[in-house]
Amino acid sequence: MNVSANNGGGGDAFVVGVDFGTLSARALVVRVSDGCEAGTAVSEYAHGVIDRKLPSGGAELPPDWALQDPGDYTDALGVAVPRALSDAGIDPRQVIGIATDFTASTCMPVLADASGTPLCQLPGLAARPHAYPKLWKHHAAQPQADRINAVAHERGENWISRYGGRISSEWQFAKALQVLGEDEEMYRRADRWIEAADWIIWQLCGQETRNACTAGYKGIFTDGRYPSREYLAALDPRFVDFAAAKLAHPVSPLGSAAGRLTPRAAALCGLPEGIAVAVGNVDAHVTLPAAGPCGPGKMVAIMGTSICHVMNGTDLMEVPGMCGVVDGGIVAGLWGYEAGQSAVGDIFDWFTRNGVPGELAEQARRRGVSLPQLLGEKAAAQPPGAHGLIALDWEGGNRSVLVDHRLSGVIVGLTLATTAPEIYRALLEATAFGTRMIIDAFNASGMHVDEFVAAGGLIKSAPLMQIYADVLRRPLSVIGSEQGSALGSAIHAAVAAGAYPDVPAAAAAMGSIVPEAYQPDAARADVYDELYADYVTLHDYFGRGANQVMYRLREIRDRATSGRADSGR
Amino acid sequence: MNVSANNGGGGDAFVVGVDFGTLSARALVVRVSDGCEAGTAVSEYAHGVIDRKLPSGGAELPPDWALQDPGDYTDALGVAVPRALSDAGIDPRQVIGIATDFTASTCMPVLADASGTPLCQLPGLAARPHAYPKLWKHHAAQPQADRINAVAHERGENWISRYGGRISSEWQFAKALQVLGEDEEMYRRADRWIEAADWIIWQLCGQETRNACTAGYKGIFTDGRYPSREYLAALDPRFVDFAAAKLAHPVSPLGSAAGRLTPRAAALCGLPEGIAVAVGNVDAHVTLPAAGPCGPGKMVAIMGTSICHVMNGTDLMEVPGMCGVVDGGIVAGLWGYEAGQSAVGDIFDWFTRNGVPGELAEQARRRGVSLPQLLGEKAAAQPPGAHGLIALDWEGGNRSVLVDHRLSGVIVGLTLATTAPEIYRALLEATAFGTRMIIDAFNASGMHVDEFVAAGGLIKSAPLMQIYADVLRRPLSVIGSEQGSALGSAIHAAVAAGAYPDVPAAAAAMGSIVPEAYQPDAARADVYDELYADYVTLHDYFGRGANQVMYRLREIRDRATSGRADSGR
Repeated sequence: MNVSANNGGGGDAFVVGVDFGTLSARALVVRVSDGCEAGTAVSEYAHGVIDRKLPSGGAELPPDWALQDPGDYTDALGVAVPRALSDAGIDPRQVIGIATDFTASTCMPVLADASGTPLCQLPGLAARPHAYPKLWKHHAAQPQADRINAVAHERGENWISRYGGRISSEWQFAKALQVLGEDEEMYRRADRWIEAADWIIWQLCGQETRNACTAGYKGIFTDGRYPSREYLAALDPRFVDFAAAKLAHPVSPLGSAAGRLTPRAAALCGLPEGIAVAVGNVDAHVTLPAAGPCGPGKMVAIMGTSICHVMNGTDLMEVPGMCGVVDGGIVAGLWGYEAGQSAVGDIFDWFTRNGVPGELAEQARRRGVSLPQLLGEKAAAQPPGAHGLIALDWEGGNRSVLVDHRLSGVIVGLTLATTAPEIYRALLEATAFGTRMIIDAFNASGMHVDEFVAAGGLIKSAPLMQIYADVLRRPLSVIGSEQGSALGSAIHAAVAAGAYPDVPAAAAAMGSIVPEAYQPDAARADVYDELYADYVTLHDYFGRGANQVMYRLREIRDRATSGRADSGR
Repeated sequence: MNVSANNGGGGDAFVVGVDFGTLSARALVVRVSDGCEAGTAVSEYAHGVIDRKLPSGGAELPPDWALQDPGDYTDALGVAVPRALSDAGIDPRQVIGIATDFTASTCMPVLADASGTPLCQLPGLAARPHAYPKLWKHHAAQPQADRINAVAHERGENWISRYGGRISSEWQFAKALQVLGEDEEMYRRADRWIEAADWIIWQLCGQETRNACTAGYKGIFTDGRYPSREYLAALDPRFVDFAAAKLAHPVSPLGSAAGRLTPRAAALCGLPEGIAVAVGNVDAHVTLPAAGPCGPGKMVAIMGTSICHVMNGTDLMEVPGMCGVVDGGIVAGLWGYEAGQSAVGDIFDWFTRNGVPGELAEQARRRGVSLPQLLGEKAAAQPPGAHGLIALDWEGGNRSVLVDHRLSGVIVGLTLATTAPEIYRALLEATAFGTRMIIDAFNASGMHVDEFVAAGGLIKSAPLMQIYADVLRRPLSVIGSEQGSALGSAIHAAVAAGAYPDVPAAAAAMGSIVPEAYQPDAARADVYDELYADYVTLHDYFGRGANQVMYRLREIRDRATSGRADSGR
């Protein structure tokens, strides 16, 4: 879209939001006045996810490892931003700010030099796995996470309740502890242990910063401090100074300016030198303002391979099984709540690949539609409950509200007449029940969910959206942008550039939502109330200890396949 | 095989066994001295299963109906027997007897004339659905069965315990009561209500007989009598004389002669007039002698779309959830026990058609093997427990030991890494757990199972047989014949012809078994002991009332699809 040409207002101000995903980065050029998306471009990372061998070759990485090459991040900036500008057809001088969001916790060991050089870019260290960024889905630090949790509970650390009682193996401390345990030299040589979300900002403005979102959700930064030296020493005496030496730095509120675009970064991106650079952010959390007003009670679900639920609140409450609650974690001045479902789109994708007979794939081909689209249509044609099935959506474990990755999926009600599209619908419904369980937990904890907004890639599936509206028995609003994260970043860039006084003001002007895009049907909702009651019964039976068959199945599996990676995590 | 030509013994005696199945009849020519199978042939029924419209046209049949055309039975005799004789290459004069076995309870209204003319063959009645034989899987008499059971329990009828506490809608009384309720004229015009197993004998020898097997298992004939007039009147005053008028007849022991082949039947079959005709029998029960010695403690499982477990005992015991215990029901002089699993091969077939992705079907095509064979190979390659799954084998409901057709299938332990061949193996195992549950019930009731013999079409799957040996932790013997039922009938023909003093003697000479064809592996059996413990827990949780979710799912389904046939039964 060529906005300048269309509106003749060559003087309009624009901002750039860049969303760093798992496999690529997307740049979006957005008009400051109204959030109009003027142009966009994507750049794939040359090395993608490094989970077999390092770019320099060498031995196979162990199971559950997932690294990235930080050069891919800066390369992507140099490709996606200029292309997005070109796509927008604007004069780059119209751009007044840039902001980014990132996967998290993706964290890395770097030097405290001018630009935070990653250890893996130092001479002689390209062959050291622990010198590389550990991607969010690096799952090899589970023993360290187990220790972090055990010691926290033993010592009665009060911050653990902010994280639903459990620190994830995906987060900063577990991954750093793994480096210390497995390659102490890399641990010692790392001046800083930093989120990629903050590192990319360092590249843009030459300033080291820490943003409130990753510090709070991934870095155990609560009430203005990190875990104590005593606690860290209890984990490992060599870890005593970890927070003070490698993490500590003023934590910046979201939407604030980290600095100004350096000449080098300006040349890389094709942007004017000196424009505002916002502090870093996380892909899920940054999406909330992209859906418009940011007040309490509005839950935004970023629905893709998994679901991340984010919501602001005025008070600090403890919601059982939430991933975290952070002061200013989504928007400065409010408590940001995060919950999640481990696998959602991943379940649909798994079933589509593994559970659908060839004749349906053939049917889809003949009709020129994708198999998921055909399954969605066939699912939509079934009256609720007609399949006689109920499923638990735990093929990827359960994040909220049980926080238990040893759980697994269940299907009940199969008969000799059951078809693949019926199971598919039951799986769609199961994820909606999972979301209802989370909303119920929020409501029961006094965090009332007033509005539910769907965002992310799955909003394109109308049958799924309708099921969510019916299961939740509430109108479902849908974010107006297909690039919610990048738009959220652009909103933060506008604030950092001073175009708006704060993120809520910018969100109100630039965010976009289709209010109540889907309405619940009372008759369908009645059926789902019945099915949900059984979902809850099965959820509690399998998930709260009455029958620990899933643990036993996993133990037996691990014994039977010892040596194989835990591919189910 | 041309036995005469091969051994030069043109004087050898032979018998013919005819197995009447659901869609076809198979004739087998067997040498009397050693059970050698000399020739065989199959004849498909022209009308197959009549479940949509009558052969004469007219309105659609209601859901759950399943009729047959009795002309197909006699036609099949006229095709299959001569072809089997020709295949054997023997002189028909070498044949000294014929016997048959049938599906059951397949029962029909007939006249008490010379040959028991079926009502549907009378002028003007071809358009009356209730004039036709009701096939075993006619499931439209469930309300009548419910009433039969309720009244029996109310009145404390002691025979109900012989049938695991429940009379099936498939059996004689429920089906007759349906005729009375829905077409009283047909009920009145039926001089006799007779099993097809007995009717076909009437066609062969011109004598009406009743065999101990169908009378006992399907006709509530216990301790020498049918249910009382008072009980029948309580069901419906018009039903008071049902047993005395339409059923009662001397009940003949299995292996006895019903009479001699009539000139008309001899011409039809191409056999000598006057040879012995044995009394009728049932396809499952007749298979036991085909596996050799018939003593107590030998359980024969006829494994096909479902499993029927038959075993002889010296004493009358009550085994919870058995289908029935009948004096002389399998072999005269012993108590015959029957139990069953509603769906076994049907589950594998359902999953193969509905749950396996096209790429595996493609792989099978490329390799030139069937999809079930490919799945069997891939299942066999997995160490027990490696799939992390456990399933309940109730896709067709549960016959023994729960006797509950509202139950349905369950799979627990699914992950994003679970594949179709893994689920397939879990389903194979689930049916083996179901058999173990039945054996445990027999053992716990004092009916000790000393030997387990597999028969039926599924014995061709070596991976399945090995799983059964491992799950049962006992050697698995396999019947030597692929035509167990027809061989069993031939054994009864030899006894009826006087070639052996009784069925056990004939079975010892003519039956055939591969003893301990599969040995259990201790390590695999250990894993299965663990999984079986969880199977039992889930079995009892879902099957014994702790969580009646399956009933609710079925109710919701039936409401959502009202008008549609209950295809899951």
